[in-house]
Amino acid sequence: MKRMDILKSLATDNGKKMILLVMDGIGGLPGPEGKTELEAAATPNMDALARKSELGLLDMVDVGITPGSGPGHLSLFGYDPMEFSIGRGILEAMGVGALVGPGDVCARGNFCTRSDDDVITDRRAGRIPTEKSALVVKKLAESIKEINGVRVTFYPGKEHRFVVVFSGEGLSENVADADPQQEGSPMRWARPTVSDGERMADVANAFIKKVAEVLKGEAPANGCLLRGFSSAPDIPLMGDVYKIKPVAVATYPMYKGLAKLVGMNVVEAGETLDQLFDSVGRLWSDYDYFYVHVKYTDSRGEDGDFEGKKKVVETVDALLPRLLALSPDVLVITGDHSTPSVMSGHSWHPVPFLLASEFVRGGDSKSFDERECRIGAGGRIEAKKLLGLMLAHARRLDKFGA
Amino acid sequence: MKRMDILKSLATDNGKKMILLVMDGIGGLPGPEGKTELEAAATPNMDALARKSELGLLDMVDVGITPGSGPGHLSLFGYDPMEFSIGRGILEAMGVGALVGPGDVCARGNFCTRSDDDVITDRRAGRIPTEKSALVVKKLAESIKEINGVRVTFYPGKEHRFVVVFSGEGLSENVADADPQQEGSPMRWARPTVSDGERMADVANAFIKKVAEVLKGEAPANGCLLRGFSSAPDIPLMGDVYKIKPVAVATYPMYKGLAKLVGMNVVEAGETLDQLFDSVGRLWSDYDYFYVHVKYTDSRGEDGDFEGKKKVVETVDALLPRLLALSPDVLVITGDHSTPSVMSGHSWHPVPFLLASEFVRGGDSKSFDERECRIGAGGRIEAKKLLGLMLAHARRLDKFGA
Repeated sequence: MKRMDILKSLATDNGKKMILLVMDGIGGLPGPEGKTELEAAATPNMDALARKSELGLLDMVDVGITPGSGPGHLSLFGYDPMEFSIGRGILEAMGVGALVGPGDVCARGNFCTRSDDDVITDRRAGRIPTEKSALVVKKLAESIKEINGVRVTFYPGKEHRFVVVFSGEGLSENVADADPQQEGSPMRWARPTVSDGERMADVANAFIKKVAEVLKGEAPANGCLLRGFSSAPDIPLMGDVYKIKPVAVATYPMYKGLAKLVGMNVVEAGETLDQLFDSVGRLWSDYDYFYVHVKYTDSRGEDGDFEGKKKVVETVDALLPRLLALSPDVLVITGDHSTPSVMSGHSWHPVPFLLASEFVRGGDSKSFDERECRIGAGGRIEAKKLLGLMLAHARRLDKFGA
Repeated sequence: MKRMDILKSLATDNGKKMILLVMDGIGGLPGPEGKTELEAAATPNMDALARKSELGLLDMVDVGITPGSGPGHLSLFGYDPMEFSIGRGILEAMGVGALVGPGDVCARGNFCTRSDDDVITDRRAGRIPTEKSALVVKKLAESIKEINGVRVTFYPGKEHRFVVVFSGEGLSENVADADPQQEGSPMRWARPTVSDGERMADVANAFIKKVAEVLKGEAPANGCLLRGFSSAPDIPLMGDVYKIKPVAVATYPMYKGLAKLVGMNVVEAGETLDQLFDSVGRLWSDYDYFYVHVKYTDSRGEDGDFEGKKKVVETVDALLPRLLALSPDVLVITGDHSTPSVMSGHSWHPVPFLLASEFVRGGDSKSFDERECRIGAGGRIEAKKLLGLMLAHARRLDKFGA
């Protein structure tokens, strides 16, 4: 019997409330002074909480494997990331509010600048402003409703980005990107990676040509590229499996999209960390599982900005009392992967977690950081098991077997 | 998706170099003074390296399972030893240079002394010298080319040992040893363990009788036993899966054989530890994964010789700077199983490992031994995941998922 089936059979709704606070890319490596970002940051609130929590490390996907944000989050939400996979296209599509039904295929679009003989001179059309981009999308949406019998729906994105959803018979996500990757190169057209992708590739290429027709004479956006063809995965919904009412409190589209995909409600949570943390209180009576996503730890890590990442941690620490004031039955602080500043990118290193509840075997951790988590009472576990552990601490799981 | 398939899809060749130093049977148990062999040995070089490495423990096959050398090494090379299995016969066959193709079956032969009524009086024919044995093999090879339509190829081995490869239709490795196990017992003939082994068992028994005919009147080698019937396993090659150019720097046939089986290049590495370690430098520019095998830790452990095993560790420690001088991007020191001197044999105890790279969460280990490995930053992991971890530290793995 698979773990997910067992948990489903044991889960009950007792109304207890759980918060999963994800500091994206939180895991680190020793920086300039031999301390990691978490060790270097002044985090009095997290450290006080650590002293009465279970600390541990999460393997997000598997030992040595560096997770993208998709697999990292799926694990945190209780899914086996080696079993369920989700393309970036579908994530971003859902993040901008697009609905992708069974059989539909979505793709990320970039407005680009192209020459008459289809050389791509700027893959991002000078990063045109979001407002300008939205106007271009509006014009296209009015002109292009259908391609070869396939319905086309547009969603504007940030700057040069948009999302398009193709709805019709015989479509498949097995299509390679229509993108030359390099500027100054001739257009690279969509092509099937598996034979069932032929129709989608044909439709995509016809779509790109139609966009160029409609935008003829415009500048800098006079064409488009399409990437990340994806269909909605067949994934059980988190609420159904775990008997919870989950809500996503996130700012960035991709994380909202992922949450929507697993069946979370996605709300408007503002743009600042301040607004984000306040949103949890506002929503407190309506849900029982709160996924709170802080993007900037990862952003600064990706920048290779050790001090910057450290400061984001300190900001989150200062906001933590707002979550504690709600007296959640279970609170977890962790990340979806490590992003050590010294590597300027995601890494495979296991991710620290802190679990606070009434029922922890804690009491001997001094602070929330990688070293304390390594020797903490939570041990080293697979991230996909974390949600089950949270449900257990919330007493939301019955006994297994008589 | 399986781990091996995921790693295959993520692996890239960036030219970074990795060394896997295997001290066979390195894991130990406390001896006379309450210290393990590793703890008792003076290892200044390993200890200095430990202070800037990740230390941990490897479960070679599974908790409580004592691995043979085959499964232990398969794990280290990135294979699931519960999925892939390799008979000792095939290992030794490859170690003496035998080629075993699809459908062939090989077996280890022992020359023995037998009576006219097939009682085995000496299972090793007085351990006849290697040179004498080679002459007997030559005589047999000239006389026996085929048995019941199955082609027979001989390879001489050390002392009383040889290898025979059977090539023909309808052969299977599902045959129990033709060996009475005890001296003074009547011959025990080959017999199928599964019905598809019948033809191979018949051919083996006819072969043994033919050998006795050819050697009639000789002494002490006037017959043979056959053990370890094995066909070449269908195993993906290490270089193809992990995008590396691996080489085996080993002295003993079985380890060379195993390395060859997984697709490593096998070179002449000399007979002494001194020559072995020097070989790595000589080969440095031609490969990127160096499997270096030290046999004697296991040999002394098997002998129950605590001091002897300790001294081998000290010898290896003194040679370690030759590997460090090459500045490998990743260096792992570990074993293929534990061989505690106090047990005089392999054991199930997890095996200490040390991983040195630019990207470790280390800095708090004091020395390389079982106790420090237990609390080290590397944690306790399945040995089959070690190679993936090495690839990660060499930055040879792309991110998994978007």
